[in-house]
Amino acid sequence: MRGTVLYGPRDIRFEERDMPRIEKSTDAVIRIAATCVCGSDLWPYRGIQPVKEPTPMGHEYCGFVEEVGSAVKTVKPGQFVVGSFATSDNTCPHCQYGYQSSCMQREFMNKAQAPFLRVPLADGTLVPTRDKPADDLVPSLLATSDVLGTGWFAADAANVKPGGTVVVVGDGAVGLLAVLSAREMGAERIIAMSRHEQRQKLARTFGATDIVTERGDEGVQRIMDMTKGVGADSVLECVGTQESMLQAIHCTRKGGHTSYVGVPHEVTLDGQALFFAHVHLHGGPAPVRRYLPKLIDLVLSRKINPGQVFDLTLPLEQVAEGYRAMDERRAIKTLLRP
Amino acid sequence: MRGTVLYGPRDIRFEERDMPRIEKSTDAVIRIAATCVCGSDLWPYRGIQPVKEPTPMGHEYCGFVEEVGSAVKTVKPGQFVVGSFATSDNTCPHCQYGYQSSCMQREFMNKAQAPFLRVPLADGTLVPTRDKPADDLVPSLLATSDVLGTGWFAADAANVKPGGTVVVVGDGAVGLLAVLSAREMGAERIIAMSRHEQRQKLARTFGATDIVTERGDEGVQRIMDMTKGVGADSVLECVGTQESMLQAIHCTRKGGHTSYVGVPHEVTLDGQALFFAHVHLHGGPAPVRRYLPKLIDLVLSRKINPGQVFDLTLPLEQVAEGYRAMDERRAIKTLLRP
Repeated sequence: MRGTVLYGPRDIRFEERDMPRIEKSTDAVIRIAATCVCGSDLWPYRGIQPVKEPTPMGHEYCGFVEEVGSAVKTVKPGQFVVGSFATSDNTCPHCQYGYQSSCMQREFMNKAQAPFLRVPLADGTLVPTRDKPADDLVPSLLATSDVLGTGWFAADAANVKPGGTVVVVGDGAVGLLAVLSAREMGAERIIAMSRHEQRQKLARTFGATDIVTERGDEGVQRIMDMTKGVGADSVLECVGTQESMLQAIHCTRKGGHTSYVGVPHEVTLDGQALFFAHVHLHGGPAPVRRYLPKLIDLVLSRKINPGQVFDLTLPLEQVAEGYRAMDERRAIKTLLRP
Repeated sequence: MRGTVLYGPRDIRFEERDMPRIEKSTDAVIRIAATCVCGSDLWPYRGIQPVKEPTPMGHEYCGFVEEVGSAVKTVKPGQFVVGSFATSDNTCPHCQYGYQSSCMQREFMNKAQAPFLRVPLADGTLVPTRDKPADDLVPSLLATSDVLGTGWFAADAANVKPGGTVVVVGDGAVGLLAVLSAREMGAERIIAMSRHEQRQKLARTFGATDIVTERGDEGVQRIMDMTKGVGADSVLECVGTQESMLQAIHCTRKGGHTSYVGVPHEVTLDGQALFFAHVHLHGGPAPVRRYLPKLIDLVLSRKINPGQVFDLTLPLEQVAEGYRAMDERRAIKTLLRP
């Protein structure tokens, strides 16, 4: 089969690779129904995160089980499944506490932009749907695998509650789905910080009540003006830069919650500034597995439509164009069909 | 009257100062029953925090109301009162959310090591007791003013719950009372990190179930060994240095809670390391006012005896010796009686 490999900055190749096979008794091999390009894939694509050797890409996936190892019990060939970008046994203490993305046996997936994929720890990682889902639901099911699960964690980690005031920093796919998540959790006011018209529109569709186009200190000042100088209850940082992190912390009210879900790149926090900011801070790799059953239900019952973040769909072999379109911000998120 | 003034490193003077008086209609003036030296007073005393001009000292206090301004309603002359180190109106949004130490009108107290003290925002800052308390309860009531309130916040901010495993980093008076607080909140296992025999003993008295003498990476390893490689649910950082902060974060399980209540000195956190640590982080100036009514009740009903942290009592005019004894670690905490 052919799969996606990053050779260096902006050098994506779709090339011959070994067909995945069962390597351990706890593995499954799945036939990908849809995969996609993640905002985090752009860090190495842009050379900001160095690529030392040809690196297989892709960690968002859903599809049909082809084969399972002898120890796999809960997943069967033919089933449609969704999994997280982080594998988990779903039984270790961290998993039991709901932090499956820090599972003691965690591996980060990285070969999903391909027609077939080996998934380790299949029982703990994959969630099957009861029936084969309608084809138009596949993009939304794919979204649960990372981008929605991560946006949901952003809202959960920032303690979004019914009636609360929420700010979302970042208008990438995760930020947009963080808006959707905050709305599902009952937030009364959801302020999306975005300066791109198309993304603002989608943010409104997902439930944003206000849009703020300013950034940095000006953005903070706008949020303060809108909250009578108090700050927001929950601020969801969905970018991962120093500016966005400080912007998020400074938009949060005293005793409020700041979450951060994008891998921070060259971010440092001053202890004393954080102390006097007086916020709760929580983040990390989203424990998507914890949320998957609920999110899959919401999608299958058509209560949410997170698949709207995919504004470009390409055949998998055009994956390089999929990266380019996101890099140049022509697309919010690219869905790839094998 | 004479009061305490810090002139420079290790230069504490007890010298003539103006008698405090009502300056605003919301002020009270109180006659101090007891005051004390705080661990945080040692930062400027040791010259780590520069002292640019002669600085009046002291922010922990309890005593009798002498006089109140015309707008004061809830506090009356003759009453015994306890207040926080941070003044609060107790009505602004931050106060309403329980973060009175970030009150929009906050002032930090700093002249309490004296026989009389002006307290701004008396209604929102001071909590009166119903009757004149027994004299032997005065040290414990004084403790609620900061050191117990701060230890209590450490436990609360680290989400200490019945049955949980707690680690306390720091064996100063705040750390020791964080142990007491965790016990009051029902923690099952409380591991105090301390290498001083006398403090270990007091930690045990306050409810510590285990003592760990190692620090830094070795200390983290010990905690990991004691928790089957998982880490603790709640880790309370009560020091404020880079080493103690990282030690606390690394002792916390994935999804667990780290709190920090000492003003951080030259502490910086790496965003990516914090991300993968996957902890909840919360801290800041303790909102003591939120807890005062409850803590005063616990003291008056003799359910807790936090005054045990005072292992040296001196007449106020010997305040310089009180600082010296703490600086040289001859005393855990010095109580001063005018």
